[in-house]
Amino acid sequence: MTLEYDGTAFNGSQLQPGVRTVQAELERAVGKLTGQPENERVVVNLAGRTDTGVHAAGQVANFKTASHHSLVTFERGLNANLPFDIAVTAAHEVEDRFHARFSAIERCYEYSILNRLVRSALTRRYATLVTEPLDLTALKLASAQLPGEHDFASFAGMGWGVKSEDEAAHVPVGKNLTLRRVEQAEWFGRGDLLIFRVAANAFLPNMIRNLVGTLLLVGNGKLNLERFEEIFAACDRRQAGPTAPAQGLCLVQVKY
Amino acid sequence: MTLEYDGTAFNGSQLQPGVRTVQAELERAVGKLTGQPENERVVVNLAGRTDTGVHAAGQVANFKTASHHSLVTFERGLNANLPFDIAVTAAHEVEDRFHARFSAIERCYEYSILNRLVRSALTRRYATLVTEPLDLTALKLASAQLPGEHDFASFAGMGWGVKSEDEAAHVPVGKNLTLRRVEQAEWFGRGDLLIFRVAANAFLPNMIRNLVGTLLLVGNGKLNLERFEEIFAACDRRQAGPTAPAQGLCLVQVKY
Repeated sequence: MTLEYDGTAFNGSQLQPGVRTVQAELERAVGKLTGQPENERVVVNLAGRTDTGVHAAGQVANFKTASHHSLVTFERGLNANLPFDIAVTAAHEVEDRFHARFSAIERCYEYSILNRLVRSALTRRYATLVTEPLDLTALKLASAQLPGEHDFASFAGMGWGVKSEDEAAHVPVGKNLTLRRVEQAEWFGRGDLLIFRVAANAFLPNMIRNLVGTLLLVGNGKLNLERFEEIFAACDRRQAGPTAPAQGLCLVQVKY
Repeated sequence: MTLEYDGTAFNGSQLQPGVRTVQAELERAVGKLTGQPENERVVVNLAGRTDTGVHAAGQVANFKTASHHSLVTFERGLNANLPFDIAVTAAHEVEDRFHARFSAIERCYEYSILNRLVRSALTRRYATLVTEPLDLTALKLASAQLPGEHDFASFAGMGWGVKSEDEAAHVPVGKNLTLRRVEQAEWFGRGDLLIFRVAANAFLPNMIRNLVGTLLLVGNGKLNLERFEEIFAACDRRQAGPTAPAQGLCLVQVKY
């Protein structure tokens, strides 16, 4: 399935006891539609793990079922059983060995920044307000250092060492757990909206928000390009900038 | 002031006792910032009257004050005192005779339609879902009949005769209370989003939503262009289509 969700009212994508998550809502809706007994869980796998407040326009999820519903019935039935802030946008039948997360070869995210002096009532859920003027050229030049295979340890979330086991098994190359291949890292300006589009084989936890938090220091003139390059090369999270807020981030596409 | 608001949680723009309205929130915030005694109302005039659920990206409002706050203090102070779903995007000092509503010479609205089979989690507040395929060319051809000065009685809200008194006094031309001058009426397609942009000197109550509800019947093939022309010429609301839902509509600009 491809999915859209508004992350505002979710405690992230992954199942956690006692809180509202995207995975829990999906598993509940699939179970209901396929007539799964209440005490048997249907496992839904999600391609990308998104934090609390992070959105998705093109998340991918899969599950196994013995149900003979048509794809259209799955699309309509799931949307009827899902809350208004999650929508199934398409459903496909896949091979048995397909796994939404482990079969994915590339994830693409967009981070949206509203760069103006005053807050917005209309984009408040989907963009981060930055009131200091940002230099789009500096943002582009700094981001041009990102594509290719690099060690992104400077931008890895603090809990990374603990969480990495299963994900590391699927990183294609190298001994280094913080190695990732960035395919695209570009900034687009649309009026007072600045959008950072970044695609990679996979991302470290918090990697995009930590990257954006550091790039913003380049954009507002607090760091120069050489210093950004040093921070990137240092492989040391303590040297990089703060974690940018979650609500600007959206998972837009997953490739297989 | 220019304003943005998310109309979802408001009972429209205009002051009404006992319900949450944009005008009430603005009057409360201005009163608080200027130190108005609680029992003295500050009157805030709004350029366009928007219904429950209708949004604004470029609403205009004015008020009179003896306060000597700077414009920047007004912008920041009002945003600090307004709820998250209203934002002041700019403040200007204007001539004493300026009236946000009666000085306006043109209003521009956009109506957004998401034309696809499945609902959206991300645009659910800002676009109306239409699952039947719409013919953009037919929509454009029908809308090409709208620009110019015409009698829009076929698209006037049912309560129109009652509400018209003060507005009618400011309609520039003619004996006909339902005469309006449309300056622009165009459709734009952006992926599965269709946007109807319409500008006029003023609009009748519900005029845009009634127009869109009728145009959609042309777009989905239920009405042909000749029949649309007849309905328009009939000046009879009963012949036109239903009122399109509020959440697709947004007031984007007011000209003076």
